[in-house]
Amino acid sequence: MSKFWSKRTHELSPYTAGEQPQDQQYTKLNTNENPYPPSPLAIEAMRAASGEAMRLYPDPNSFELKKAISEYYSVWTDQVFVGNSSDEVLAHAFVALLKHSKPLLFPDISYSFYPSYCKLFDINYKQVPLADDFTIDLNDYSEATADEVGSIIFPNPNAPTGIALTLVEIEKILKANPESPVVIDEAYVDFGARTAISLVNDYPNLLVTQTFSKSRSLAGLRVGFAIGSVEMIEALERVKNSFNAYPLDRAAIAGAAASIKDRAYFQESCSRIIKTRERVSDDLSDLGFTVLPSKANFVFAKPEKNAEKLYLDLKENGVLVRYFNAPRINGFLRITIGTDEDMDVFMGKLKQLL
Amino acid sequence: MSKFWSKRTHELSPYTAGEQPQDQQYTKLNTNENPYPPSPLAIEAMRAASGEAMRLYPDPNSFELKKAISEYYSVWTDQVFVGNSSDEVLAHAFVALLKHSKPLLFPDISYSFYPSYCKLFDINYKQVPLADDFTIDLNDYSEATADEVGSIIFPNPNAPTGIALTLVEIEKILKANPESPVVIDEAYVDFGARTAISLVNDYPNLLVTQTFSKSRSLAGLRVGFAIGSVEMIEALERVKNSFNAYPLDRAAIAGAAASIKDRAYFQESCSRIIKTRERVSDDLSDLGFTVLPSKANFVFAKPEKNAEKLYLDLKENGVLVRYFNAPRINGFLRITIGTDEDMDVFMGKLKQLL
Repeated sequence: MSKFWSKRTHELSPYTAGEQPQDQQYTKLNTNENPYPPSPLAIEAMRAASGEAMRLYPDPNSFELKKAISEYYSVWTDQVFVGNSSDEVLAHAFVALLKHSKPLLFPDISYSFYPSYCKLFDINYKQVPLADDFTIDLNDYSEATADEVGSIIFPNPNAPTGIALTLVEIEKILKANPESPVVIDEAYVDFGARTAISLVNDYPNLLVTQTFSKSRSLAGLRVGFAIGSVEMIEALERVKNSFNAYPLDRAAIAGAAASIKDRAYFQESCSRIIKTRERVSDDLSDLGFTVLPSKANFVFAKPEKNAEKLYLDLKENGVLVRYFNAPRINGFLRITIGTDEDMDVFMGKLKQLL
Repeated sequence: MSKFWSKRTHELSPYTAGEQPQDQQYTKLNTNENPYPPSPLAIEAMRAASGEAMRLYPDPNSFELKKAISEYYSVWTDQVFVGNSSDEVLAHAFVALLKHSKPLLFPDISYSFYPSYCKLFDINYKQVPLADDFTIDLNDYSEATADEVGSIIFPNPNAPTGIALTLVEIEKILKANPESPVVIDEAYVDFGARTAISLVNDYPNLLVTQTFSKSRSLAGLRVGFAIGSVEMIEALERVKNSFNAYPLDRAAIAGAAASIKDRAYFQESCSRIIKTRERVSDDLSDLGFTVLPSKANFVFAKPEKNAEKLYLDLKENGVLVRYFNAPRINGFLRITIGTDEDMDVFMGKLKQLL
């Protein structure tokens, strides 16, 4: 607290990231990182960009990267926005598109950064409870049936549940809210859900955000993007150019562009994680866990005994998972899918502890 | 314009960066980039960081970099804040420290991003005219003599004038505004002005920001920082953790830390630019320009003939400088100091055109 702080600064509720121990001694299954390295082509591109040209500003429009993304998803380059992680892209979307006099709706159990953005940008919001089975009830997100809708955001698959909506369900939400911007945060979409990018040309109220941190193994590079109609993207560009004109460095532009071009590597890496996830889900069920059906690179699972104690016991035994001390989900653990070897270590420790 | 945009988005005045032609055919003296490459140790560190570890999130606290900066400036690590360019650091400072009910003061001729931040964050601001010789009048920045002071920001040296205040003058401003946060934007300080970092322990209202883009030849890497009292830094951390928990990628943390440790390379590179600046200033005066006394890596100079035409003629002849079509300064050109060879090309073209 300080007289020099703005009123807003006193009111903030900063986000708490998962632990990032710097000693690297853990089997680290707590922040949804990809266990496989980035594409060798991405590594080569980052290193090539990290030379004497670093004395020059990067392209403020990151055109090389926008072009690679637009070709991958068959959209125009001016339908693509890029930023310093999908967290930054989301932050700009909260200011540009989600702040209206009527409330922003999002699920009560969801990405825990959303309320932090709302406090920072003074956004009126309403957390809508998930159903008892942790699914989104479509009727809760409709200009006709909900009390008031200013805008909508939800992750698909949702986090930390891992449960995904189908494209048919997403289209119902878009149709039920023609006056309201709808942002779909697809951080985990590449592990078995379907992207809504195919809908952006039909629904001008839709913005889809994605990240290079999960399926593309580039959490350390900080690159995210959004795809939508030209008018949605223009709103993000206006905010970006009022905040930081050059958010992506030269290595980030080059590395992310190379990564998205390496389709074979990407598909192989996602397939391996999906296969491991299905095995681990079955094994956890066999041990008595309630496992939510995940389309992400993590599983959200409820042990028969105390989840917080199990989290602490696992940590003491060198395995980090994520525990949220929050209503409705404090009986669960969120377990990132690592390599098969990582998961064997995890399951081995788990069997000792149960 | 769109019904999906927030009210704020409609009201923005986005910043316009200097031209960044991607064909690289120009003698580029328009965006104050350093003509010398970054330290070889920085290049080595960026490349080493750009490997398989990119699959993992970076340290959200960028401790390695904070430590290197704190050792260089003899402050504590919790007096250091780092961000994705000094533009991002400034953006957070505008929200965290410069937004109050009384107005933020800054010079009418100054970094043109400041009004963009004010529009984005709805900050009450007042632009204070520089004196006729383009210096800051200290009496204009005082809780006792100015009408109202909520907070203060100015670059030192100022941009685009290049004129610097002395530490004694800065101390007078700090003493005259004990209730108001004062941010000094030292993007260009290493080319001959003196940093106010030595004052942070005496003045709890002081925050100093700097960048790796100019004196450290890392414009392409996007790293900036701030130094102040622990309470000033805590305000920035609160905003940062409500916006983007991991703004610096692995290569940025490693490259910037290596750069700041390479003191000899840094001093040599700055000395060369200062020497070239002094020569170019003299040569421009000889050609009839009015040259403001610069402590930056650029000179702000007024030709006897039409400045806009000269800017366009230079561009047509392959030399890019910066022209601002704004009141009071539309007779000037801002010329970045390049290598001696760059400046010989510039002076040669200039002599042909005058």
